[in-house]
Amino acid sequence: MKLTILGCYAATPRTFTNPTSQVLEIKNRLFLIDCGEGTQVQLRKNKIKFSKINHIFISHLHGDHFFGLIGLISTFSLLGRTTDLHIHGPKGIKEIILLQLKLSSSWTNYGLYFHELESNKSEVIFEDQKVTVTTIPLNHRVYTNGFLFQEKLSERKLDVDAVQHYNIETCYYQKIKNGGDIKLDDGTIIANEKLSFDPLPPKSYAFCSDTVYHEAVIPIINNVDVLYHESTFLQSEEALALKTLHSTAKEAATIALKANAKHLVLGHYSTRYESIQLFKEEAATIFPNVLLGDDGKSFEF
Amino acid sequence: MKLTILGCYAATPRTFTNPTSQVLEIKNRLFLIDCGEGTQVQLRKNKIKFSKINHIFISHLHGDHFFGLIGLISTFSLLGRTTDLHIHGPKGIKEIILLQLKLSSSWTNYGLYFHELESNKSEVIFEDQKVTVTTIPLNHRVYTNGFLFQEKLSERKLDVDAVQHYNIETCYYQKIKNGGDIKLDDGTIIANEKLSFDPLPPKSYAFCSDTVYHEAVIPIINNVDVLYHESTFLQSEEALALKTLHSTAKEAATIALKANAKHLVLGHYSTRYESIQLFKEEAATIFPNVLLGDDGKSFEF
Repeated sequence: MKLTILGCYAATPRTFTNPTSQVLEIKNRLFLIDCGEGTQVQLRKNKIKFSKINHIFISHLHGDHFFGLIGLISTFSLLGRTTDLHIHGPKGIKEIILLQLKLSSSWTNYGLYFHELESNKSEVIFEDQKVTVTTIPLNHRVYTNGFLFQEKLSERKLDVDAVQHYNIETCYYQKIKNGGDIKLDDGTIIANEKLSFDPLPPKSYAFCSDTVYHEAVIPIINNVDVLYHESTFLQSEEALALKTLHSTAKEAATIALKANAKHLVLGHYSTRYESIQLFKEEAATIFPNVLLGDDGKSFEF
Repeated sequence: MKLTILGCYAATPRTFTNPTSQVLEIKNRLFLIDCGEGTQVQLRKNKIKFSKINHIFISHLHGDHFFGLIGLISTFSLLGRTTDLHIHGPKGIKEIILLQLKLSSSWTNYGLYFHELESNKSEVIFEDQKVTVTTIPLNHRVYTNGFLFQEKLSERKLDVDAVQHYNIETCYYQKIKNGGDIKLDDGTIIANEKLSFDPLPPKSYAFCSDTVYHEAVIPIINNVDVLYHESTFLQSEEALALKTLHSTAKEAATIALKANAKHLVLGHYSTRYESIQLFKEEAATIFPNVLLGDDGKSFEF
């Protein structure tokens, strides 16, 4: 599982900082999460094969999280994309995109599908053989969802030495990977555990931005491997965080701790502070495994 | 008069090239012309005092000319702008911007005024004491205007030595600047030409992008000081230019020649070519004073 931060600064794009967007590579799927202005250039700079992105998840309709979407959709067209593209985001996103396509007399030469969200309850919004994506309702100034990406349990790993020892034919291998026991010609039953290894435990990633400190997310993201949680402010601006429905680094760490996350990645920093190291220092007083998100930074888990 | 090219490449923003946007400083006014994605970052990189921009002119609703507008409008709000902002552009631009502001539950804390264009005839769309802006109807795949910026004739320059020689009181200086003659106490009339110098000739700038080769612009831009004319292609792609309603470098130069322009600035280059020098070489076979537009380049006239 690889997370690439394309942008993780609050509010406006600046000369050296970008608004929110990130790419999650999980089980060979490439998901784009949020798409602030300039995301398509950040995808190029970070050498992401962005033609492989088939699903884009938009947390909310504040500009620093979606103003780059129409440009990316148009660029896909200009580059001759033919694969379907799915946009998951708040109700209204479809109207915004289609109006702009209509007024520019352009259209996509690929299938463009919108999956608009309006539920305030956590729900599965994407599922295939290997990955599930679930919404994490957040508490911000407009309707906002985080997203929980979960690998599904893989099939078991064949113990090659064991199956050769028992002379098991290859046509039974898939049965073993699926967890089945094997009956030999002499009637002996070989338990699956003797023929296979446990698969790697499935990994999970939770994206929570933007939101005020919101304990309702904890049961949804419980035991998550990696939590990205916004930390727009430091605790010294606690009142401002509450007023604008954002979080502090300490609050992000508290959520990570209470949800028993393995790692916390911080981001969505206000640019008022001298150094983002301050966010890490503050969060580390609460939670040990803090990673500082930054534009162009990748994390492998 | 100073022209700063923020972006002048066709189609999509890329790692090192930007879509169309430029700033014209004329008579201490700062006009923004087109606003492709990333324009606000280009404004910062080029150290333009962009809070001074009060009028934005959008040529047409193809994404590479306006996808950065909503971001800039939002950023102005976040930066606490209070001065009115005027957007001049094709019908539809207001709906696009207001829909996005509405869905993000945000609003501008400054006056935001839209002046939508739908005429196919050249018309004056801005005028103040020192500058006039006139549309240049172009021929592209969607409704498109170029813009002609013209300084008004300044007042005459006082000849300080002469007015002192004739002992003329300061209360008459403005009359002289306005072109009036002066009657001395002894009844002698001093002709204005003896008391003042001609003002600098007013300058003009024409922005023509995007368009196919279109001779109808010539009478509108006749004798212009500086013509920016799109040159998406070279003459080797003449057929493609005609099909997509773009121009070649040779065609841009032909318009400059026939309109008796003093300078031609090229831009809106397709990224298919190895070097933009090829555009200059081609145009120079037709018209002598060719300048190559490029991102971050400034020209003073």
